[in-house]
Amino acid sequence: MSTTTTGVRVDGRADNQLRDIKITRNWLDHAEGSVLVEFGKTRVLCAASFTEGVPRWRKGSGQGWVTAEYAMLPRATNTRGDRESVKGKIGGRTHEISRLIGRSLRAVIDTRELGENTIVLDCDVLQADGGTRTAAITGAYVALADAVEFARGKRLLRSGNAKPLRDSVAAVSVGIVGGRPVLDLCYEEDVTAGTDMNIVCTGDGRFVEVQGTAEGTPFDRDELNSLLDLGAAGCAELTLLQQAALA
Amino acid sequence: MSTTTTGVRVDGRADNQLRDIKITRNWLDHAEGSVLVEFGKTRVLCAASFTEGVPRWRKGSGQGWVTAEYAMLPRATNTRGDRESVKGKIGGRTHEISRLIGRSLRAVIDTRELGENTIVLDCDVLQADGGTRTAAITGAYVALADAVEFARGKRLLRSGNAKPLRDSVAAVSVGIVGGRPVLDLCYEEDVTAGTDMNIVCTGDGRFVEVQGTAEGTPFDRDELNSLLDLGAAGCAELTLLQQAALA
Amino acid sequence: MSTTTTGVRVDGRADNQLRDIKITRNWLDHAEGSVLVEFGKTRVLCAASFTEGVPRWRKGSGQGWVTAEYAMLPRATNTRGDRESVKGKIGGRTHEISRLIGRSLRAVIDTRELGENTIVLDCDVLQADGGTRTAAITGAYVALADAVEFARGKRLLRSGNAKPLRDSVAAVSVGIVGGRPVLDLCYEEDVTAGTDMNIVCTGDGRFVEVQGTAEGTPFDRDELNSLLDLGAAGCAELTLLQQAALA
Amino acid sequence: MSTTTTGVRVDGRADNQLRDIKITRNWLDHAEGSVLVEFGKTRVLCAASFTEGVPRWRKGSGQGWVTAEYAMLPRATNTRGDRESVKGKIGGRTHEISRLIGRSLRAVIDTRELGENTIVLDCDVLQADGGTRTAAITGAYVALADAVEFARGKRLLRSGNAKPLRDSVAAVSVGIVGGRPVLDLCYEEDVTAGTDMNIVCTGDGRFVEVQGTAEGTPFDRDELNSLLDLGAAGCAELTLLQQAALA
Amino acid sequence: MSTTTTGVRVDGRADNQLRDIKITRNWLDHAEGSVLVEFGKTRVLCAASFTEGVPRWRKGSGQGWVTAEYAMLPRATNTRGDRESVKGKIGGRTHEISRLIGRSLRAVIDTRELGENTIVLDCDVLQADGGTRTAAITGAYVALADAVEFARGKRLLRSGNAKPLRDSVAAVSVGIVGGRPVLDLCYEEDVTAGTDMNIVCTGDGRFVEVQGTAEGTPFDRDELNSLLDLGAAGCAELTLLQQAALA
Amino acid sequence: MSTTTTGVRVDGRADNQLRDIKITRNWLDHAEGSVLVEFGKTRVLCAASFTEGVPRWRKGSGQGWVTAEYAMLPRATNTRGDRESVKGKIGGRTHEISRLIGRSLRAVIDTRELGENTIVLDCDVLQADGGTRTAAITGAYVALADAVEFARGKRLLRSGNAKPLRDSVAAVSVGIVGGRPVLDLCYEEDVTAGTDMNIVCTGDGRFVEVQGTAEGTPFDRDELNSLLDLGAAGCAELTLLQQAALA
Repeated sequence: MSTTTTGVRVDGRADNQLRDIKITRNWLDHAEGSVLVEFGKTRVLCAASFTEGVPRWRKGSGQGWVTAEYAMLPRATNTRGDRESVKGKIGGRTHEISRLIGRSLRAVIDTRELGENTIVLDCDVLQADGGTRTAAITGAYVALADAVEFARGKRLLRSGNAKPLRDSVAAVSVGIVGGRPVLDLCYEEDVTAGTDMNIVCTGDGRFVEVQGTAEGTPFDRDELNSLLDLGAAGCAELTLLQQAALA
Repeated sequence: MSTTTTGVRVDGRADNQLRDIKITRNWLDHAEGSVLVEFGKTRVLCAASFTEGVPRWRKGSGQGWVTAEYAMLPRATNTRGDRESVKGKIGGRTHEISRLIGRSLRAVIDTRELGENTIVLDCDVLQADGGTRTAAITGAYVALADAVEFARGKRLLRSGNAKPLRDSVAAVSVGIVGGRPVLDLCYEEDVTAGTDMNIVCTGDGRFVEVQGTAEGTPFDRDELNSLLDLGAAGCAELTLLQQAALA
Repeated sequence: MSTTTTGVRVDGRADNQLRDIKITRNWLDHAEGSVLVEFGKTRVLCAASFTEGVPRWRKGSGQGWVTAEYAMLPRATNTRGDRESVKGKIGGRTHEISRLIGRSLRAVIDTRELGENTIVLDCDVLQADGGTRTAAITGAYVALADAVEFARGKRLLRSGNAKPLRDSVAAVSVGIVGGRPVLDLCYEEDVTAGTDMNIVCTGDGRFVEVQGTAEGTPFDRDELNSLLDLGAAGCAELTLLQQAALA
Repeated sequence: MSTTTTGVRVDGRADNQLRDIKITRNWLDHAEGSVLVEFGKTRVLCAASFTEGVPRWRKGSGQGWVTAEYAMLPRATNTRGDRESVKGKIGGRTHEISRLIGRSLRAVIDTRELGENTIVLDCDVLQADGGTRTAAITGAYVALADAVEFARGKRLLRSGNAKPLRDSVAAVSVGIVGGRPVLDLCYEEDVTAGTDMNIVCTGDGRFVEVQGTAEGTPFDRDELNSLLDLGAAGCAELTLLQQAALA
Repeated sequence: MSTTTTGVRVDGRADNQLRDIKITRNWLDHAEGSVLVEFGKTRVLCAASFTEGVPRWRKGSGQGWVTAEYAMLPRATNTRGDRESVKGKIGGRTHEISRLIGRSLRAVIDTRELGENTIVLDCDVLQADGGTRTAAITGAYVALADAVEFARGKRLLRSGNAKPLRDSVAAVSVGIVGGRPVLDLCYEEDVTAGTDMNIVCTGDGRFVEVQGTAEGTPFDRDELNSLLDLGAAGCAELTLLQQAALA
Repeated sequence: MSTTTTGVRVDGRADNQLRDIKITRNWLDHAEGSVLVEFGKTRVLCAASFTEGVPRWRKGSGQGWVTAEYAMLPRATNTRGDRESVKGKIGGRTHEISRLIGRSLRAVIDTRELGENTIVLDCDVLQADGGTRTAAITGAYVALADAVEFARGKRLLRSGNAKPLRDSVAAVSVGIVGGRPVLDLCYEEDVTAGTDMNIVCTGDGRFVEVQGTAEGTPFDRDELNSLLDLGAAGCAELTLLQQAALA
């Protein structure tokens, strides 16, 4: 990518530059699809579990189901956090991100083509350095694609030439740091960002989710437009990396 | 408002027309601020509880704290839902909306001016017909303003001429229904919307939150722009209604 | 009513005088029956949800089921209370009152005539000033009656001329305050009452529940008799108000 | 007692006859007071735990605190019930009875004389055959008396001649079975009773709690009076048995 | 038994001497098998509940199921512990012991001979003075044997001459106290033991469970051998006591 | 090691042969010590979190605290398991293993030398193929050693030449499979094992924990001795591998 350096980011990147992205497929032996995805130091293990059948409320519909669960290991972060299993309940942030990942993946899956099967995406953050939800979506798509291929091989889809995946999906964070819109914030940038936005795009460049939050000062329409530009470009890059990984 | 009817909505409104909005202050006798806000049939009771002191993690900071809790009565909806207190845990949606309301209000409060005091906004949906979270934010701001005035009267703010409220905040939903961008969706529209977006704006027209989700088909940049235009205009109208209520 | 003032109550009422009672039917649009009942400042929203079918343990019995859930909004009271949904469990008081309301309503319902249908009464206290459980029972009966009529209109009862309601039911609190038996205690009286009693009566004047508790000094048989007289008379008045509301 | 047989009860007792009552003190080695109380086959282990200090909300008040927890072993009953610890929450009935026992004991304790100390009464039902809550109150009083004497011996009360116990307290159930008021119902009677009432009295014959419930047909004032007579007489008998046990 | 005193234990026993063991059958009226087992002051109530049918996952297997739940009354111990039902969750120790008891009993039951029936063993510690889990296993076996005989009498086993019990099972604790291996530790010994081991043996002297833990200093093979010798001999003695109780 | 093949194991190993063991230090960037330990396909991430201070109950004792939490990712296993955080409670097995790891590590730590500091070991199973608890202990020791060195470097231990680690600790499973004692069972062997034992040894060859369970047939003393021999030898090998990793 062309890098237009208009300032100095904490890790020396250009404002529109992604961190080093690594997508390692088949990191696990048991899962039908599994990816260790890395956005710099952020490391998320995405496991796709394919099972025949659907939840009760969907039985007989002819449609499959895709859902996701996100979680963070206690020492993924700088200081250890309490385990949600020990606390006995899931926090609001965890719930929110699990729902976001599930919605993002469902945006590109044709549940009729999937047949009455379920795919659960477990996205466990092994190490966190900002952007865990966007890394999770980006990696989960690849694991999902592998699980779909697994099912095709086992002739478990709706038909032999079923195409459950209508498109790919990727996600990236953008934000206003030190007054400048930047792409793919690391943790240190994230905590100082005035505005924080997560963009989820399909492979053809349309939006699935746009979630922008003013952490401090509200943002105006121009700033919003800059962030959307930056995010859309970042997702396009990630789409290419997903394609390369799956090639 | 000028209404440009470009189609027929389920309740006969123009695409850019809000439902009937009612803001009833002092609906409760005990709370320091309380508002029954109505967006058509959606009815949310917003109670602001002012207490001196802040949570432990904020003690000695010189700053106050504002937070919110959202909930829905079991029979707010068409069919009765289970109580979260009976289920023993709060669902992801409830968590997510509570967090959104809290963030939105904190965007316009100067916690230093508030002094070491806490204001909790309880937003309980008595009846739901779409747009409960945006109604909650819009009503909660008015209850918050009343609670701040209460505190000023009791000389509990940082100083006699403290101005904890930097601006007002209002919210509205927009979405693409039947292929057309429309404002302030009722429940029947919400379930058929292709894209659903919540916009939270300050009184001066800047954005605090933008949350857009493609329920079915992903949306492109043009559609996104239309929705942002519509939402910003809707928030501006709501701002006037808040001002009138507080006058 | 004739008021025999034998002292001065905190709000100027005679010892045997009820507070202002308001029963507003159809306060909600969705519920099969709904009542906003007010005993002075105490305000309880009672929603009756009618659904066909019964819980599993009652299937095939030919009998319906009526149950109730009571809860209080966090800021119903003078100082904000924690939400039971956030705490993750329902307190003993809530459980106890929910059970009381359910038993009181079942005392006047003929579950065979109801057919295999379920009616759930949600009694949510919007504002509390003493006597919330008795207001809830009094209002819930009216909502229940409306839900039964709804079901009759839809031909969902056991038969066209089924009479599921054998009688009406109403409730009131009585107590010994400042040494004198008084009717329908407000919160300020309740906290100083030596003995506190809740009386639930059918429309024909018989008792469904009698729950008396010595908060401080134990009470003797004469005091008990005075309280029963006062409560029975209060319930008779409430019965007339229920009839008027349903007329 | 003189038995006036006006019918035949399931276990051959007269209508006003208690079951065999046994009060075994010091059933445990560790507790400051402990009683195994038996009302026929109903067997409740009451342990009084004395600890110096009071809960935080009572610190510095100069007053002590007495509370109770009631529970039932899973196989106390005819068919095994699930453990509340395994279910992860306490049922409404358990809460309700725990609160009743606590209130009943606090009615006879002078918390100032107790000094800033806490006594917890654990009432665990080892076998249930009706009347477990009344047996628990009756036994718990004796365990409480022993714990108070323990504290006196250790000079832990407010003063050397402190008298924390103002009176004794006992409880019994009464009900209308087969149309006749009877005393101290066993389980088989309890399930068929038209009205069920629990009476808690002090040693001097006054009432602490009166809780009557119409299970089927509502009851009139005459029936209520009969039940109160029967219950008061039963409590008086139990008071003598408590005195004998403590002698 | 021959006692070889090689030191002085806190309660005067020889190193290889059990405490006074009492096994009281039929302590409860309702349970299909029930035992109050006492190891000195340790007192555990073991109730066996026989029910026809098996958990869902075992249906149609032709095999029965035996499981156990262990719990401790709050005042079983020297200082009162919190109730797990009140805390809303079961602690790790409780879980661990329940699982141990269940495994130990399943080691001697032939689930095919049992037929599709379930036996639940509730082991509730009424008083604790060390060795509660080993007392529970020893007593639960006797209750289990009674429940099996109950089922045989009702012709509920697989066949008339079914033998679900392949052998008996008993358990005892051993440990290194003051440098010497000793049998059946009481609480005072348990807290000072360097190594603590629980041995579960069948009636024919083989091992079902061996669980040894170095509380302080790790133990060597010789010490381990001494403890195994001591535990095996203790179990043999307990086996005889079980046989006597069942005779 | 010399391998004496006396049969054919499922993966071709000799009976006394460990799987391929890999110990990768510093797998995480944030934790004070971190190890990815692999026993064949079993993969456990062990993170040691060092924090100054101790839990409240240990304050002022001059002693530190070491504890552990074990958990399994949902798709660590062949078929996906439910998340304990979603279920809202930790299962008995998880509790049991967490406690075992904590006890094992505390056996080799001198908490006085550690000073009033806490080290938490998080052992998260990324992939499970039998022996997860023994791999966790073996890896956690290495992470613990690194965390201690970290603290030494920061001068946070009791003194400059403090030696909190008295010895190393390692663990391995042994079992009787197909009638033959074998070392370090993989999952396929584990499910068919007649007896299953976990051995935890210090670096000097003494025992910290011995936990043997007869899954089917009880085991005799000879079998027990064979398993102890095999386990002790396996731990000695693992000790050398730990030393090599830390060198």
